Amino acid sequence: MNYESFFEGQLEALRAEGRYRVFTDIERHRGAFPRARRHAEDGSDPCDVTVWCSNDYLGMGQFPPVLEAMHAALDQCGAGAGGTRNISGTNHHHVLLERELADLHGKEAALLFTSGYVSNWAALSTLAARIPNCAVLSDESNHASMIEGIRHSRAEKILFAHNDPEDLNRRLAALPADRPKLVAFESVYSMDGDIAPIAELCDVAEAHGAMTYLDEVHAVGLYGPRGGGISEREGLAHRLTVIEGTLGKAFGVMGGYIAASDALCDFVRSFASGFIFTTALPPAVAAGAATSIRHLKTSQVERERQRDRVAKVRAGLDAAGIPHLANPSHIVPVMVGDPVHCKQISDTLLDEFGIYVQPINYPTVARGTERLRITPSPIHSDADIDHLLTSLGKVWARCGRSRMVA
Amino acid sequence: MNYESFFEGQLEALRAEGRYRVFTDIERHRGAFPRARRHAEDGSDPCDVTVWCSNDYLGMGQFPPVLEAMHAALDQCGAGAGGTRNISGTNHHHVLLERELADLHGKEAALLFTSGYVSNWAALSTLAARIPNCAVLSDESNHASMIEGIRHSRAEKILFAHNDPEDLNRRLAALPADRPKLVAFESVYSMDGDIAPIAELCDVAEAHGAMTYLDEVHAVGLYGPRGGGISEREGLAHRLTVIEGTLGKAFGVMGGYIAASDALCDFVRSFASGFIFTTALPPAVAAGAATSIRHLKTSQVERERQRDRVAKVRAGLDAAGIPHLANPSHIVPVMVGDPVHCKQISDTLLDEFGIYVQPINYPTVARGTERLRITPSPIHSDADIDHLLTSLGKVWARCGRSRMVA
Repeated sequence: MNYESFFEGQLEALRAEGRYRVFTDIERHRGAFPRARRHAEDGSDPCDVTVWCSNDYLGMGQFPPVLEAMHAALDQCGAGAGGTRNISGTNHHHVLLERELADLHGKEAALLFTSGYVSNWAALSTLAARIPNCAVLSDESNHASMIEGIRHSRAEKILFAHNDPEDLNRRLAALPADRPKLVAFESVYSMDGDIAPIAELCDVAEAHGAMTYLDEVHAVGLYGPRGGGISEREGLAHRLTVIEGTLGKAFGVMGGYIAASDALCDFVRSFASGFIFTTALPPAVAAGAATSIRHLKTSQVERERQRDRVAKVRAGLDAAGIPHLANPSHIVPVMVGDPVHCKQISDTLLDEFGIYVQPINYPTVARGTERLRITPSPIHSDADIDHLLTSLGKVWARCGRSRMVA
Repeated sequence: MNYESFFEGQLEALRAEGRYRVFTDIERHRGAFPRARRHAEDGSDPCDVTVWCSNDYLGMGQFPPVLEAMHAALDQCGAGAGGTRNISGTNHHHVLLERELADLHGKEAALLFTSGYVSNWAALSTLAARIPNCAVLSDESNHASMIEGIRHSRAEKILFAHNDPEDLNRRLAALPADRPKLVAFESVYSMDGDIAPIAELCDVAEAHGAMTYLDEVHAVGLYGPRGGGISEREGLAHRLTVIEGTLGKAFGVMGGYIAASDALCDFVRSFASGFIFTTALPPAVAAGAATSIRHLKTSQVERERQRDRVAKVRAGLDAAGIPHLANPSHIVPVMVGDPVHCKQISDTLLDEFGIYVQPINYPTVARGTERLRITPSPIHSDADIDHLLTSLGKVWARCGRSRMVA
């Protein structure tokens, strides 16, 4: 087999479909977020852009105390952890961060992973593979990392209709009462921005003796009086067996975690290949994340300002008749519905208006639902919003795309 | 099912077998490696220890230019990347680091992952799953991350005897000539420290039209005139389809990568779930790693000094009659062969002598081959080595363990 030709053929097919991904090469300016310098592919001079699609939802990646904690930990402990958690890589900053995370979710314990992806993959695959005859009930819209973790476990997977407690109930009722069961779902779904009916899903899971696993990566730091996510906001954290989160979005740094009982965290710690056999997070990353979490446990300013920015963007889109998906979260999906147009609009915004919103195509979203996913944050000014709306209006008109009746 | 009882029972079984893992909570002192402060579990005052089991093999985690680059990138770009590589998370530091890595291995391209574990898991699972009918020939001693990646692909896996080109040849010959094949192995095996016969394995793979995938995580930075690993040292890099490495061991920071052709890297970039759906490495991590790689491309001091330290430790163990596994690498496995004794020796070294060498038990090594894995580095002084050897001799005598004839 000619392997190179095979790879090239597969890439050509992506290009033909309009979904070949070109990464936008940027440097965010610390202290001037959402501004970033864009390095163009053609080698022309870098120019400044405004980032409108970051998952550093609250701008904590430039929050001075977070950076100070990282600088201090670098000077104190050096660059990397130097080993796996078991073999010389457990740094005191990891221990402190795990305590901070357990406290955030009101759980006995927490366990750090190198990313949110790895936390889902490793925790779900370990739980589902090692609990004998476990059945996994998985929301049909779950994130790739959850899908891959469940797949890796080889446990039986049963999809339930998105955010549908009745469908979950039917599927659980069809299983033997004494069979171990794990219900896995998210609080805020990243691409549509809709929110799960957590209480109802817990009611159903509890009625059938199932564990619950909630991915809060797009909610931690953003919702709840202490940033504990939707489960905190709704007073439900104690009902969930596992809460999973990330340090790489609203907390502004990198890493993932689960929070749960002592025994569950210790079990995953002891058996998860993706936890055991990997170098621990750099101490400076752990120190920065802990500072970010601590700040957002008491400060409401960032969350309030973000809600205000989101409302302003939505109102502007409505006024301009630009179609966006209504939802109760901070995510504003402007729907295009075609991969080629979606990329064209994004390219024009970037090249002509200095606005960076990445086009979102398959497989991240379903074909036919291609979109621009806008994430307003506390660091976007009124002027930024006006420029976004004006520019989007112009590009929309130029492309001859339909508008909603305002 | 009572899930908590299940977890507790599984943990109790680990304890009964003597292989329940207790993490040693330390803070390495930047500027004073291999010294670290140990935080005891019982809350007693922290005390200083000498780390003898770090995978920061050359002490690059405290190398001033690496830390300066990280401080500068923190101040320039902030804490985290703020998104996946595709959605606002590609920072110019990632682009520069990927160029540095491609150059290190003489390949057209390189692709960054969040860890070495993820690079193996994501690259192998993507290649093996997406190349139609691919058979994976896997060295029986491959690392957990490779095993899990191959397993995840659901491609047919065929084990070949460890470091045995003849066995590989037999197994390849048994497959149809036109079937796609991928041969996956490591250069330096982490726990025994033995080195693969790369040229012979490439000869066999080429004769059967198979791709080759070489994990160099315990070799990059350490071997070859530019730190390109065993494949560089032996002039073989061009014969390998993929070279995989880590930024978290000899380079002292965090992250993983593959280096290969443009088309192969672009293929993995475009299809690997574990690459696509995860937040990119912090820019500061990428900047630190690039500085470390650049330094080790020209400096031989660290590699030469490490070889000297390794030889000195080995000679001292020989003189004391303490059994260790002979091998041609920098890894010195002191064999104990029992999980309970192994932990006892490690605990005594830590508590009484201030020497930290983590016991290595199943599943990291086979049962009955439990060991202390010592990793001498350029930053261990003569006095450190003398103290290690004297202390180990005392503990060995006290435990009544047998010695080799010197």
